[in-house]
Amino acid sequence: MLGVKHTLGYSGPVSTDPPRQKRATIIDVAREAGVSRGTVSRVINGERYVSSEAEAAIKAAISKVGYRPNVAARNLVMQRSQAVALVVHEPASLFAEDPNIGAIMLGANAALSAADYQMVLLIVDSERDTERVSRYLSGSYADGVIMVSARTHDPITRVIEKIGLPATFVGHPPDVTQMAFVGIDNRASARAITERLVATGRSRIGMIAAALDRDSGADRLAGFRDALGDRFDANLVEAVPLYEFASGVTAMQELLRREPQIDGVFAASDAVAAGAMNALRSAGRSIPQDVGIVGFDDSTWALRTKPQLSTVHQPAQGLGAAAAASVLSQLHGETPPAGGVLLDTPVVWRGSA
Amino acid sequence: MLGVKHTLGYSGPVSTDPPRQKRATIIDVAREAGVSRGTVSRVINGERYVSSEAEAAIKAAISKVGYRPNVAARNLVMQRSQAVALVVHEPASLFAEDPNIGAIMLGANAALSAADYQMVLLIVDSERDTERVSRYLSGSYADGVIMVSARTHDPITRVIEKIGLPATFVGHPPDVTQMAFVGIDNRASARAITERLVATGRSRIGMIAAALDRDSGADRLAGFRDALGDRFDANLVEAVPLYEFASGVTAMQELLRREPQIDGVFAASDAVAAGAMNALRSAGRSIPQDVGIVGFDDSTWALRTKPQLSTVHQPAQGLGAAAAASVLSQLHGETPPAGGVLLDTPVVWRGSA
Repeated sequence: MLGVKHTLGYSGPVSTDPPRQKRATIIDVAREAGVSRGTVSRVINGERYVSSEAEAAIKAAISKVGYRPNVAARNLVMQRSQAVALVVHEPASLFAEDPNIGAIMLGANAALSAADYQMVLLIVDSERDTERVSRYLSGSYADGVIMVSARTHDPITRVIEKIGLPATFVGHPPDVTQMAFVGIDNRASARAITERLVATGRSRIGMIAAALDRDSGADRLAGFRDALGDRFDANLVEAVPLYEFASGVTAMQELLRREPQIDGVFAASDAVAAGAMNALRSAGRSIPQDVGIVGFDDSTWALRTKPQLSTVHQPAQGLGAAAAASVLSQLHGETPPAGGVLLDTPVVWRGSA
Repeated sequence: MLGVKHTLGYSGPVSTDPPRQKRATIIDVAREAGVSRGTVSRVINGERYVSSEAEAAIKAAISKVGYRPNVAARNLVMQRSQAVALVVHEPASLFAEDPNIGAIMLGANAALSAADYQMVLLIVDSERDTERVSRYLSGSYADGVIMVSARTHDPITRVIEKIGLPATFVGHPPDVTQMAFVGIDNRASARAITERLVATGRSRIGMIAAALDRDSGADRLAGFRDALGDRFDANLVEAVPLYEFASGVTAMQELLRREPQIDGVFAASDAVAAGAMNALRSAGRSIPQDVGIVGFDDSTWALRTKPQLSTVHQPAQGLGAAAAASVLSQLHGETPPAGGVLLDTPVVWRGSA
C-alpha cells in the first residue's frame, strides 16, 4: 500500500530522460507575465484578488509560452478528474473470446464521451493488478467506476465501498446489496429459451452450464431447471468454468458420451454453443435435425455458426451505456434506483433449433 | 479545448452528492495533529524545515483520520502518475472482431503490471474521443503512451510529439520517423506465406487485401506481389476497408464471380479468411481440394475454421509486451533503437492450404 514518504520522495528516472522539448511551467508563465508565481497560481485556480491587468497579462503569457494547465493541479482544486474507470476483471483469454466485453466497453465509452468524460479501462488479470487498481481508484484519477464481472469478496468492490466512489456494476454484484447495478434477468431469460426448445419437441435436453461461481452462470442454470421442472435430469448438465469455445467442445463430447440420445442443448453462452456445435458435427450429428442447440448472448458468434444460432439477445452495448448513465447520474447527485436496472432480453430464433 | 477559466471554476455536481462517507482531507489531518495546513502540506510533499515532533504528530493524524495521500497531489510533486496509457484507435466493431487487440492489451498490461505501472486503456472511436484523449494525454494522467493503430496525420500522434511524452507505437506509425515502434515485417511475412501457397501448385491465386490505408495492409499486398512476380494479376485482388469477417464473405463472392477458376487465396487476416471460407463453402467449393486459403495473424479464428487455417503467426501478446518494455525503458532515460523492433512471424501450416 501507499506509504506517504515512500511515494512522495522524488527520485528516479525522470531527471535522466533524453533531452526533449521541455514542458512550459507556471514559472515560465510568471516570468513572461512579469508577475509572481503565486499570482499565476491564483488566476489558474480561479481565485479572486488578482487585478484584471495581471489576469490579462497572465492569460497572454499562458498562450505565448504554451502552458497547458496541469490536469493534476485541476484535480486538486476540483477534487475531480473528469474520468470514469471501467474495471474489467476477467481471465486473460476472455478478452479474445467474449464479444460482450468489447460491446459493454464501447457502449460505456460512447455514453461517457457524450458527457465529456474520459473512460479509462483498467484490466484486472492478476492479484498484483487487483492491488494496483485498488490503489489507483483510491487516488484521484477517476470520479466514478463501472465494474464488470465483480467477484465474491472482490477487494476492488471493498475499496469502492470504503471510499464511497460513485459506482455502478454491470451484472448483480455477488455480495453487495447497496450498490447500483444494471443487468439482465438471467434466470427468466434462460427459462424462456429452454421453454422454446422444449416446444420444438425435444425430449432429452441437456445443458452446458458455465461460470457457476457468478450470478449469471448460476441463474442460467436455475432458469433451465425452472423450464424443465420434473423432466430436469442432473446427469444431463455439464458445468465448465468459463464462457468459452474450447469448453463447449469438451463438455459436448462428455454429454454425448453420457447420453447418446441427447436431442436438445442449452449452452450458457454463444461461444460455448459454437464449441458444442463443433463437437456435435465431429460426432456426426446434424443440427437442428438430430440435436437442437440454443445459446445465450446474441453475440457475433451467433451469426457465424452454421446454421445460425437461436439465442437470448443480451444488450451488451446497452448495458455499457446504462451503466455509464447510472454513474453520471450519481455524479450529478442523484440516487440510483434500488434493485438495479434490468434491460430486456428477447429470444432470437434462428436455424440451430 | 481547455479554457483555463472554464475548466477551473468550481461548479456543479459534486457538492450535491448524496451523503456518503466523507473523504478525509489535509484539513482534518492538520486539525487532528494541531498544526497548520501548510505544515501538513510540507510533510506530505517531503519538504524539510518541519520538526520531527510535528512530523510524527502528522503521521499519526494521517493514520487516525484515514487520510489517503491524494495521487493527484503526488502527480504535482513528482510530475509522474505511474500510469501508462494504451491508446486504441479502431472502429467500434473491431473490438469484437480482432483478437489481436485483446492480446496486445494483455501483453502490455502484464509487462506494465510487473513494473508496477497502471495501464489505462483509452478508446478512440470518434472525433470527440480524439480531442478528449489528446487533452487527457496533455494532462498529467500518464507518464507514457503505447499507441495502437495510429492513422496518418493522427492528432493524438501530434500531441505526443508536441509534449514529448515517452511513446511507443505498435506497428510503424504512418507519417512519423522519430518515434519508437515495435512491429512485424508485414511485407516479408506476406511474401513467405504466398510463396508456400504457390509451392502447393496453385495457379490462379488471388488476394483479399484489407486496410490499404495502413502500413500493415499496404505491406501485405506488396509482399503478395513480390511472391507472385510476373504472375501477379490485379484482377484477382479485391480490397476491403477493414480486417473483418463480413468483408471476407463479400470479397470472396466477388473474386469467385470475376474468376471462377480461382484456386488459391491469401486473405489479409484470419477473420477475413474465415469469412472467405464461409463464402467458398456456400459456393460449393471444398477447402483445400478446390481452393487453398491462407490467412494472417494466427489468432483464435485460425483454430476455429474447418479445416484449420494456414497462416502467419503474429505475436500479438509479444508486441504488447515489447511496446510496454520500450516505454518503460524510455521512462528510465534510455533511447529506443532506431528503426524500431521487429518480432518474428513464423508461417504456421495447417489444413486450409
